[in-house]
Amino acid sequence: MQKIRLGIVGYGNIGRGVAQAVRMNDDMELVGIFSRRDPASVKLDAADVGTPVYAAADAEKFQDDIDVMILCGGSATDLPEQGPAYAKLFNTVDSFDTHAKIPEYFPKVDAAAKEAGHLSLISCGWDPGLFSMMRILSGACLPQGEVYTFWGDGVSQGHSDAIRRVPGVRHAVQYTRPYPEALDAVRTGDCPNLTTRQKHYRECFVVAEDGADTDAIEQAIVTMPNYFDEYNTIVHFITMEELLRDHGTMPHGGFVFRSGKTDENNKAIVEFSLKLDSNPQFTASVLVTFARAVYRMAKEGNTGAVSVFDIPLRYLCTLSYEEQRAKLL
Amino acid sequence: MQKIRLGIVGYGNIGRGVAQAVRMNDDMELVGIFSRRDPASVKLDAADVGTPVYAAADAEKFQDDIDVMILCGGSATDLPEQGPAYAKLFNTVDSFDTHAKIPEYFPKVDAAAKEAGHLSLISCGWDPGLFSMMRILSGACLPQGEVYTFWGDGVSQGHSDAIRRVPGVRHAVQYTRPYPEALDAVRTGDCPNLTTRQKHYRECFVVAEDGADTDAIEQAIVTMPNYFDEYNTIVHFITMEELLRDHGTMPHGGFVFRSGKTDENNKAIVEFSLKLDSNPQFTASVLVTFARAVYRMAKEGNTGAVSVFDIPLRYLCTLSYEEQRAKLL
Repeated sequence: MQKIRLGIVGYGNIGRGVAQAVRMNDDMELVGIFSRRDPASVKLDAADVGTPVYAAADAEKFQDDIDVMILCGGSATDLPEQGPAYAKLFNTVDSFDTHAKIPEYFPKVDAAAKEAGHLSLISCGWDPGLFSMMRILSGACLPQGEVYTFWGDGVSQGHSDAIRRVPGVRHAVQYTRPYPEALDAVRTGDCPNLTTRQKHYRECFVVAEDGADTDAIEQAIVTMPNYFDEYNTIVHFITMEELLRDHGTMPHGGFVFRSGKTDENNKAIVEFSLKLDSNPQFTASVLVTFARAVYRMAKEGNTGAVSVFDIPLRYLCTLSYEEQRAKLL
Repeated sequence: MQKIRLGIVGYGNIGRGVAQAVRMNDDMELVGIFSRRDPASVKLDAADVGTPVYAAADAEKFQDDIDVMILCGGSATDLPEQGPAYAKLFNTVDSFDTHAKIPEYFPKVDAAAKEAGHLSLISCGWDPGLFSMMRILSGACLPQGEVYTFWGDGVSQGHSDAIRRVPGVRHAVQYTRPYPEALDAVRTGDCPNLTTRQKHYRECFVVAEDGADTDAIEQAIVTMPNYFDEYNTIVHFITMEELLRDHGTMPHGGFVFRSGKTDENNKAIVEFSLKLDSNPQFTASVLVTFARAVYRMAKEGNTGAVSVFDIPLRYLCTLSYEEQRAKLL
């Protein structure tokens, strides 16, 4: 069987996860990792040693060798530029996750992909991605109801970074955690109104610089606008040794609920949740799975930008369509 | 806006649910109910009074008036015949749920629908249906793992009927219930091997005939092959008054889990669950939602039989595709 040939742009957490996910899927192979750094300077993880590393500038030479390019850059500055640029050269999958900017990102990728005859899946992963699928599916099946999304327990990279910018902070890891009582309130089916403060709290593990004023650091964190001021926030000061030992992994997860009624009285609750030891590995696994769909749909002549809302599930699965119906329906 | 015009074949629990679901969706209207009984003899629920009832034999006269016909017959004997027959006349949606016979049902409906230029969605609802979607989606995203399906707490019609056939039984309702400890064992991510007996138990509320031997009835139930012998079964004898008062509704629900790993060590667990006050109403709501997709996909020229694996989620939702991406992605 001809394997699906994937490329990776960007060797950060997600790029490493894609390399790992390819190893979990027998029908995939990894052609190479493309980096804006000098390829010779990219230090591969032990498991990835042997994978060719190329300069991103040379990617266009690989158009005949790669079926789908997985764009693993960040949403803030990398993908707004890389998404349209790579869609001109390859079928692509990305995890663009700035929800508010999807309406401007989509048409740019769409135009580039259509002009070149490629297919580009944007905003894949678990949120946006699987959670988006649950929102649209459960919302359609229960048109009269409320949707709730919770995140955690898990490490928020953005919030951890924000703490690290506070003067006197050496290192920090921030966990977003849903209140169990808020989850249970939703599970009653009574469609509670929950404020931001009632849904999640934030727990921060901070390593202060020697002699730093920890009271001042704590105040700076808990009052930080947008990031912490609307939440109950717990700050723990720990040593660098403790942080590296106890907070070095990237777990995450979350919940999507749809709570509605099927007549005036009868309630119905749909609940979807993820519990992930490694957020980047699972995100990457979703990207690779949807790359299979992109490969197949592109072969059928589809072009332009698409989202997870446009992908029939049959394209995700390696079983024949007959086997899918016999075993999974 | 032109509404989507639906018809119902069969006015049982699901047919009643479809009539109710149409009232929850502004873009739908119900053209009529088709019955094999004399239309004059069909007694409509209060909420449905005013809906025209027609003889099933006259359905073909309504081909220009109905966009999608929802087939609400049973899977044992009605749908194997009605599925292909109605696919010749209409776009259809059905809830054929005899999992083992889907491979022979699908091609019959497919041939009939293709020949007539119609689109027919088979085996829709929540299992098969939403649960099937979760099995294929989570299985693809976690290729190395195990899938678990649990049903309940809920009333099983088939098992209730089986008890009612035991000599000395006047009436009975059977609940299928998952063991909470089995659910928790799956949630650990350790992929436990669970026997049939470890996953679910069965609780039966039975009204015995006057003077019947309740010990003999209980023995007949708990040892009944296929239905009860592989389960721990609890039998309660109650009065008809109690049964009608406390066990007259049709709740149901269940769980689909995918438990897998994203590398040698990191676990990931996907959990999807439903908690439904009314099993038939929610099932019907899913049928009506997918009828929207069938209507749209048929308009685009698609024909033949399809399953939920073939439906892009965008077709389920009344929002424009731009709004979907802006609000739900």
